[in-house]
Amino acid sequence: MDNHSYTFSQRANRLNSSVIREILKLTERPDMISFAGGLPAPYTFPVEALQSACASLFQDHAHASLQYGPTEGQMELREWIAQRHGTTASRVLMTTGSQQGLDLLGKVFIDPGSKILVETPTYLGALQAFTLYEPSYSSIPSDDFGLLPQELTPELADGARFIYTIPNFQNPTGRRIPLNRRHELVAQAKELGILLVEDDPYGELSYSGDHLPSLHSLNPDDVIYLGSFSKILAPGLRLGYIIAPEAIHLKLVQAKQATDLHTPSFTQRIAYEALRSGLLDSHLPIIRQRYSAQCQAMLEALARHMPDGIHWSRPEGGMFIWLELPEDMDAEDLLQKAVAHSVAFVPGAPFYASSPHRNTMRLAFVTVPPERIEQGISVLGQLIRDQLSIGYKTGSF
Amino acid sequence: MDNHSYTFSQRANRLNSSVIREILKLTERPDMISFAGGLPAPYTFPVEALQSACASLFQDHAHASLQYGPTEGQMELREWIAQRHGTTASRVLMTTGSQQGLDLLGKVFIDPGSKILVETPTYLGALQAFTLYEPSYSSIPSDDFGLLPQELTPELADGARFIYTIPNFQNPTGRRIPLNRRHELVAQAKELGILLVEDDPYGELSYSGDHLPSLHSLNPDDVIYLGSFSKILAPGLRLGYIIAPEAIHLKLVQAKQATDLHTPSFTQRIAYEALRSGLLDSHLPIIRQRYSAQCQAMLEALARHMPDGIHWSRPEGGMFIWLELPEDMDAEDLLQKAVAHSVAFVPGAPFYASSPHRNTMRLAFVTVPPERIEQGISVLGQLIRDQLSIGYKTGSF
Repeated sequence: MDNHSYTFSQRANRLNSSVIREILKLTERPDMISFAGGLPAPYTFPVEALQSACASLFQDHAHASLQYGPTEGQMELREWIAQRHGTTASRVLMTTGSQQGLDLLGKVFIDPGSKILVETPTYLGALQAFTLYEPSYSSIPSDDFGLLPQELTPELADGARFIYTIPNFQNPTGRRIPLNRRHELVAQAKELGILLVEDDPYGELSYSGDHLPSLHSLNPDDVIYLGSFSKILAPGLRLGYIIAPEAIHLKLVQAKQATDLHTPSFTQRIAYEALRSGLLDSHLPIIRQRYSAQCQAMLEALARHMPDGIHWSRPEGGMFIWLELPEDMDAEDLLQKAVAHSVAFVPGAPFYASSPHRNTMRLAFVTVPPERIEQGISVLGQLIRDQLSIGYKTGSF
Repeated sequence: MDNHSYTFSQRANRLNSSVIREILKLTERPDMISFAGGLPAPYTFPVEALQSACASLFQDHAHASLQYGPTEGQMELREWIAQRHGTTASRVLMTTGSQQGLDLLGKVFIDPGSKILVETPTYLGALQAFTLYEPSYSSIPSDDFGLLPQELTPELADGARFIYTIPNFQNPTGRRIPLNRRHELVAQAKELGILLVEDDPYGELSYSGDHLPSLHSLNPDDVIYLGSFSKILAPGLRLGYIIAPEAIHLKLVQAKQATDLHTPSFTQRIAYEALRSGLLDSHLPIIRQRYSAQCQAMLEALARHMPDGIHWSRPEGGMFIWLELPEDMDAEDLLQKAVAHSVAFVPGAPFYASSPHRNTMRLAFVTVPPERIEQGISVLGQLIRDQLSIGYKTGSF
């Protein structure tokens, strides 16, 4: 048998190595100013608290932390989460990062051809997770404040399995859905009998520390909530969770058991040990303050270096700024040039489920020191100006 | 919208809460003598070594351990594994337990209706993982030494995506495929152009410490190998791996990225810190010696308490004994009675992909102290005798 004689599944044949992923491998070069990664800044990791948590775990619960555990997750951690979200532990399932939550939702809700509604644009990782289950996507028109409830028509909703949304500081745009629109969205979804899936990795990263009510809190029986500790503790623990109505929770637990039995007992217990002491009360303000300053540094650099006609979002939280180039400029072309000048970002096109806007791009600002932000944005500004002047020349001759 | 108006996927509709799982929840009662769980014995966990590994991790690699990592896994750990298996790290993908390896294989190879070949009986958890992708199973006839290569006919192999086998101390039977049969199996699979999937969680648990060559070592290009640290370090870390030819590895990595981005950096680095010091050289003999003694205790208790006509396997490694009741006796009925007497085991029927033998059962012997093994087997022996005498009476009137 030669290496090509085995037969992959249909879904596997649709998996492709992304061109962007290949380009972004270059961003690991130490000289690169990378606005590409969605990584939280390592200076926000509560190393000492996690170290103490580890020590007390080995002291008091070594065997339990190292043994198999329940598929649903470690009970104390589930109770902690439930209390924070005003629900019961019986609705909480621990997942290996919230990316796994997306995979489990795909498993449990998506048949080939099932309609799924997403924002415009939406999170690339969710598209990757769902696409393995071969849905058909419909994009809900959205503006600078997120998806537009009035665009959620009966025709669009008809037969759709769920609506996927990131209401807080969305990846990739940084935008947040305002309160009145949250109420409208939840009411409209209820009216149309369609489930909402609320993905909320950035909700705690509001720079002012304010919170808008989650969609889940507005209607716990028709909203599935995905939470994550990646941006508020550390992503290397790979800890997320799904809060869902009992009947859906039960299916998710069965799917989770078949998928990996359970999320590591060890990392769950470390997180619980760290959280139970009230770590977040002191830790979240530190992250918020740092990320706010980083965001401000990039906004100021953009104002200084970008030519007219370039637009960008002004996030009130989270990790990303969304930038729109002139309509005929392609962000993938710009990335090729930028990487040659040791600057990287993620082009926006892959974040669209359909009709990609190729003139868009995502800038992550949390890991790069302010002076390097200034330098990187200056390079991008110059490349865009160069491009504009070529376009001008081409147009004028 | 009421709680029943959402639409699950076809695969989710096929997920059912198992009756056995419900019965086995009772086994958590402290008075229960449980031969049911597939859990390794906590006394085998190398707690001190893992504790030191943790401490040195926080000392030297705190940020890297807590940050996102590559989808393929942590490079040093992959290299350690590759060296142990005589392959290259470029073929090694870290997974969240080897259960996740099974899920990824399902994702990448199984379309609805795809034919998959399995042993008779086979591992229940593999059936659970694969079934989510809706294959059609064919069982390869097997004997006390595992699957029979001569039964792997062209008709059976035709169109099959892969053969799934546990050659070492199989779950549930405890049997091991002998060397000559391994050669025959690998040759026959190659002749028929069919992939082998070799699941090997128990290979290091040979009581004598001997090793038979893995199927993978006999033909690395046509055998996918699933490894696990659950039985030799600790299952709560949820660490497994897949070794696969490059083209398959690439698809598995893409599927893994969509599924959970990567296995926790933190647990991978703890394992590597513990393993690099040569922990297994001193640790494996301890596990083997303990498990061998436990197995011996159960074999002796079975010899003492089981009536004539009951057969059981005599494993040379691993964690399980397989027991066959008289043909007309149902192990699920026996379980109901046994649980009422505070003894539990797993009935064998769910381990068959087709035509279940309802008179079979799996006994795990590693977690129960020898005096409780004696007591539990004595109860089972008595219940079986009672049943036989009722059968006799019923037959005689």
